[in-house]
Amino acid sequence: MSSSDIFIGETIGTAVLILLGGGVCAAVTLKASKARNAGWLAIAFGWGFAVMTAVYISGPLSGAHLNPAVTVALAIKNSDWSNVPVYFAGQLLGAMIGAALVWAAYYGQFHAHLTDREIVGGPGAQATAAKAVEAEEKGAGPVLGIFSTGPEIRNVVQNLATEIIGTVVLILAVLTQGLNDNGNGLGVLGGLITALVVVSIGLSLGGPTGYAINPARDLGPRIVHALLPLPNKGGSDWSYAWIPVVGPLIGGAIAAGIYNVAFA
Amino acid sequence: MSSSDIFIGETIGTAVLILLGGGVCAAVTLKASKARNAGWLAIAFGWGFAVMTAVYISGPLSGAHLNPAVTVALAIKNSDWSNVPVYFAGQLLGAMIGAALVWAAYYGQFHAHLTDREIVGGPGAQATAAKAVEAEEKGAGPVLGIFSTGPEIRNVVQNLATEIIGTVVLILAVLTQGLNDNGNGLGVLGGLITALVVVSIGLSLGGPTGYAINPARDLGPRIVHALLPLPNKGGSDWSYAWIPVVGPLIGGAIAAGIYNVAFA
Amino acid sequence: MSSSDIFIGETIGTAVLILLGGGVCAAVTLKASKARNAGWLAIAFGWGFAVMTAVYISGPLSGAHLNPAVTVALAIKNSDWSNVPVYFAGQLLGAMIGAALVWAAYYGQFHAHLTDREIVGGPGAQATAAKAVEAEEKGAGPVLGIFSTGPEIRNVVQNLATEIIGTVVLILAVLTQGLNDNGNGLGVLGGLITALVVVSIGLSLGGPTGYAINPARDLGPRIVHALLPLPNKGGSDWSYAWIPVVGPLIGGAIAAGIYNVAFA
Amino acid sequence: MSSSDIFIGETIGTAVLILLGGGVCAAVTLKASKARNAGWLAIAFGWGFAVMTAVYISGPLSGAHLNPAVTVALAIKNSDWSNVPVYFAGQLLGAMIGAALVWAAYYGQFHAHLTDREIVGGPGAQATAAKAVEAEEKGAGPVLGIFSTGPEIRNVVQNLATEIIGTVVLILAVLTQGLNDNGNGLGVLGGLITALVVVSIGLSLGGPTGYAINPARDLGPRIVHALLPLPNKGGSDWSYAWIPVVGPLIGGAIAAGIYNVAFA
Repeated sequence: MSSSDIFIGETIGTAVLILLGGGVCAAVTLKASKARNAGWLAIAFGWGFAVMTAVYISGPLSGAHLNPAVTVALAIKNSDWSNVPVYFAGQLLGAMIGAALVWAAYYGQFHAHLTDREIVGGPGAQATAAKAVEAEEKGAGPVLGIFSTGPEIRNVVQNLATEIIGTVVLILAVLTQGLNDNGNGLGVLGGLITALVVVSIGLSLGGPTGYAINPARDLGPRIVHALLPLPNKGGSDWSYAWIPVVGPLIGGAIAAGIYNVAFA
Repeated sequence: MSSSDIFIGETIGTAVLILLGGGVCAAVTLKASKARNAGWLAIAFGWGFAVMTAVYISGPLSGAHLNPAVTVALAIKNSDWSNVPVYFAGQLLGAMIGAALVWAAYYGQFHAHLTDREIVGGPGAQATAAKAVEAEEKGAGPVLGIFSTGPEIRNVVQNLATEIIGTVVLILAVLTQGLNDNGNGLGVLGGLITALVVVSIGLSLGGPTGYAINPARDLGPRIVHALLPLPNKGGSDWSYAWIPVVGPLIGGAIAAGIYNVAFA
Repeated sequence: MSSSDIFIGETIGTAVLILLGGGVCAAVTLKASKARNAGWLAIAFGWGFAVMTAVYISGPLSGAHLNPAVTVALAIKNSDWSNVPVYFAGQLLGAMIGAALVWAAYYGQFHAHLTDREIVGGPGAQATAAKAVEAEEKGAGPVLGIFSTGPEIRNVVQNLATEIIGTVVLILAVLTQGLNDNGNGLGVLGGLITALVVVSIGLSLGGPTGYAINPARDLGPRIVHALLPLPNKGGSDWSYAWIPVVGPLIGGAIAAGIYNVAFA
Repeated sequence: MSSSDIFIGETIGTAVLILLGGGVCAAVTLKASKARNAGWLAIAFGWGFAVMTAVYISGPLSGAHLNPAVTVALAIKNSDWSNVPVYFAGQLLGAMIGAALVWAAYYGQFHAHLTDREIVGGPGAQATAAKAVEAEEKGAGPVLGIFSTGPEIRNVVQNLATEIIGTVVLILAVLTQGLNDNGNGLGVLGGLITALVVVSIGLSLGGPTGYAINPARDLGPRIVHALLPLPNKGGSDWSYAWIPVVGPLIGGAIAAGIYNVAFA
C-alpha cells in the first residue's frame, strides 16, 4: 500500500466512522430527531455498524485501521513503525471531517436543541443568570457527547482503567483474527466480526466512560466541537481529553504484548 | 442479464423491499398492530433486513439494484447507461406494488387508525371544523410516513444535504464491496453487509429526514398514497417529494465520483 | 436422506424452533420472567434466532424444512411429493414437543401468571362471577399467545391475506437461496440469512396476526395448549386455527409458482 | 494443542467472556452507568457477542470451549477425557479474572450503587435496623446478579430443568456445527452462529433463571463476589450455587447422548 492510498483510505474511512458514530449520538440526543431517545442499544449497534461500514469502504485502500490504537498495536506486532505517522494523520483528519458532516446532517436539529431554552435575557436578576449558566451546562453536556466521550463519574484512575480494558479487548480481537480458521484468518468476515466486537464493548464496557477506545474518535471531534459556531455549546472539557487518547494507546500496547507472548 | 430478467427482478425485488420497509413503518405506527411503538431500532433493523431479503431474492435476476441511485452510480462507474431505463421502470413499479401490499396486509389497521377520532360532524361550531382539520393533519402525518419520508424540520438545503450524505455512504459501501478480499469482493456476504450498512444509515443519519436514500422507495409509495381510497388520509406532501428523489441521485453521482477518483 | 433421518431431523428441529420461539413469547409475557415486557424487537429477534438454531441443528439430518409451507413449496418446485407425509409428521410432533418444553421451562411462571388474580370465590354476587370471566379472558389471551397466533382485528379475508403475504416472502427467500453466488447458493450462510428474513417478516408483517407463516408452528402448540392442565387457561380459539394453517400453505404454493415462472 | 496453550487460551477466553458478559449486567444495572435500564435485549445481545468475542480470541489456542458443559460434551462425544482437567482449570480461573475486571471497569459505579441508601446508623430504633436489612437485600440482589445467576421463582426441580433445557440447546448447536455444509462444518462462521444461539437462549429461555448454561460462568464470579470488598454486598446465595453447575453439566451430557444416538 502506498502512503497516499493509506492516507486517503484512513481519511475517508475515519470520516465515515465518525459521521455514522457521531450521527447515532446526534440522532438519539437532539430535539427534532426521529430517533430521539432510541436508547443505549441503538448507540451500541450504531457505533458497531459504523465501524463495519468504514472497514469495508477503506479496507481495500489502507487496511482499515481507523484507530491509532490499532496502528500502534500492529506496529508493535510487526516491529514496523514506518507508516504510523501517515495513518495517524489520516485518522485525525478523517475524524474531524466526519464530525463536521454530523453537524451538516443535523444542522437544524443542533440549532433547535441548543436554542430552545427558557433563558430570559434583558435586565434582571442574578437568578436568571444562574439559570442561564445551569441551562447552558445542561445543554452543553449532551451536545459535547455527540462529539466526544465523557465519564459518568470523574476518576482518573478508573476512567483510564476502563478505556484500557475496553481497548485491550478490541485490539486482541483484531490481532487474533488472522489466527482463526487454521491460520487462514477470518477473511472477508473480519469486518463484520470486528463490528460486533465493538457492539459488545459498547454494551458491556461503555457504561462508565462512553467507550472512546480510539484516540482519533475522541480528539478529532473534540477539536471540531471547539471550532464550530454552535450557540450555547459549552466547553469542550479539555481537562478530560487526554484520557481517551492515552488510555486506548496503552490498551493497544498491552494487547500487542499479550499477543506477542501468548499467541505469536 | 436480459432486459426482461432485469425488469422482473427489479419489480419483484423492489416490491419486497417496500412491502417489508413500509410494513415495519405500518407495524410501529398503526393502531391494533402488535408491534405498535416498537421504536426506532425496530424501524432501522426492519428497513435493513428488508433490503437484505430483497437483495437475495432479486440478485440472481437483476443484480438487485432496487434503487435508482445505485443504478446511476453503477452507470457512471461502468460508463454504461443502456439498461438504466429498464432498471428505473422496474424499481418504480415494484415500489408501487410493495406499497399496495402494505395496505393489503394492514387493511384493518389503516381503517382503525384513520377513523378512530373524535371528529364531530353535523351542524356546528367552527371549533369542531378546526379540530377536524387538526385531527386530520395529526393523523395524516404518521400515515403518510408509512409510505414516504418527511423532514422533522423543513429546510431545503439541510434536507437535501442529509439525503445526499446518507446516499453517499450507502453507494460508496456498495461500490467498494468488489474491492474487498484482495479484489474478490464480498461475494455472497454482500447482501448481508449492505443490509447492515442500511441499518447503520437509519440509526445514524435517519433522524432529520427519515432517510429515503432511494428515489423509488419514496416516489412510488407516495403515488400509491395519493391513489389509495384511505379515509382522512391527508395530503401526500408533493412539495417535499422532489428532495428524496434529487438528493439520492446527487448522492449516487458523488459517490461514483469519489470511487472513480480514489478507489478505481 | 432416509425417511428416519427426515423424521428425526424434523422432530428435533421443530421442537427446538418452538421451544425457542414459544420461549421468547413466554419470556416477554409471563409474570416472574426476567425478560418481561422486553418488547416486539425481542419477539422478532427471538423467533428469527430460533429458526437459525433449529436450521443448523436439523439441517444435516433432514434439510431443515421445519415448516409444512416449505415442504409443500419444495414438493411443487421439484415435483416430488414422496417424503411430504414424513416431513409433516415430524414437524407436527416436534412442534408439540417444543410447546411442552416451553411449559416445563416456564412452569412456575405459568402458574404465577395464571393464578395471581383477584378472583373471589365462595358464596357471592354475580359481579364476582362476571369479574372472574373477565379476568380469565384477560389472562387467557396472552397465555394462548405463547402457544399460537391470533389476530388483533378478526377479519378472515385480511388475516388470510396477511399470512399469505408473509409466507410468500419467506418461501421466495428460501427458494432463491440456491440461485445466488452464480448458482452456487448461499451455502453455509443460508441458515443465518433465513433467520434474518424471519426477523424481517416479524418486524414488518407481524403486526396484524402475529405471523404464523408456518402451519406446524401454530397447530402443534395449539393442540398442546388444549391438552395442558393449566389453570384459568381459557379457550384455544379453534375458530381461528384454520387460518394459520391454510394461509401459509397457500402462500407456499404461490411462492413456488412465482419461482417456477420467474426464476426457474 | 498443548496443555499450556489450552490453559492459556481458556483462561484468556473465559476472562473475556465474563468481562463482557458480567459487564453488560453491570452496565444495565448500576447507578451512574450510561447504559442503565437498557433492557433485556441489551443483556441478551451483550452475552451473545461476549461469547463471540471470546471464541474468536481463544479459538486458535484452545478451541474455545469456555464452558465446562462444552468440555464434558466433547469428551463424551470423542471418548477422550485427557484434557478435561486443564480445560476446567482455565475456565474457572478465567471466569474469576473476568469478574474482577468487571469490578475494576465499574469501580465507581459499584460504590455509587451500593452506598447510595438511606441507611440511618447511630443509636436508634429497630425499624432502622430492619430498613437497613431490607435495603441491603434489595441492593444485594442486583449486584449479585452482575456476578452470578439467580432464579425468579426458587424451585429446585424447575430451575434445574430450565438450565438443563437451555444447555441441551446450546450444546446440540455446538456439536452439530461440524455436520453442516455436507460435513465441512460451519468453519469460520461458527463463532458468530454460536453467539447468536446464545442470544436466542437468552431471549427465549433466560426468563426463569437468568441462563447460566455454563458452570464456570456462574461459579467463578460467585467466588469473586464472596471475596471482593464491596460494601453492603449481601450474601452470595451459596444455597443456589450448585444448580447452575450441575444443571449445565447434565444438559451437556444429555446433548452429547442425543448427538451420539441421532446424529453420529
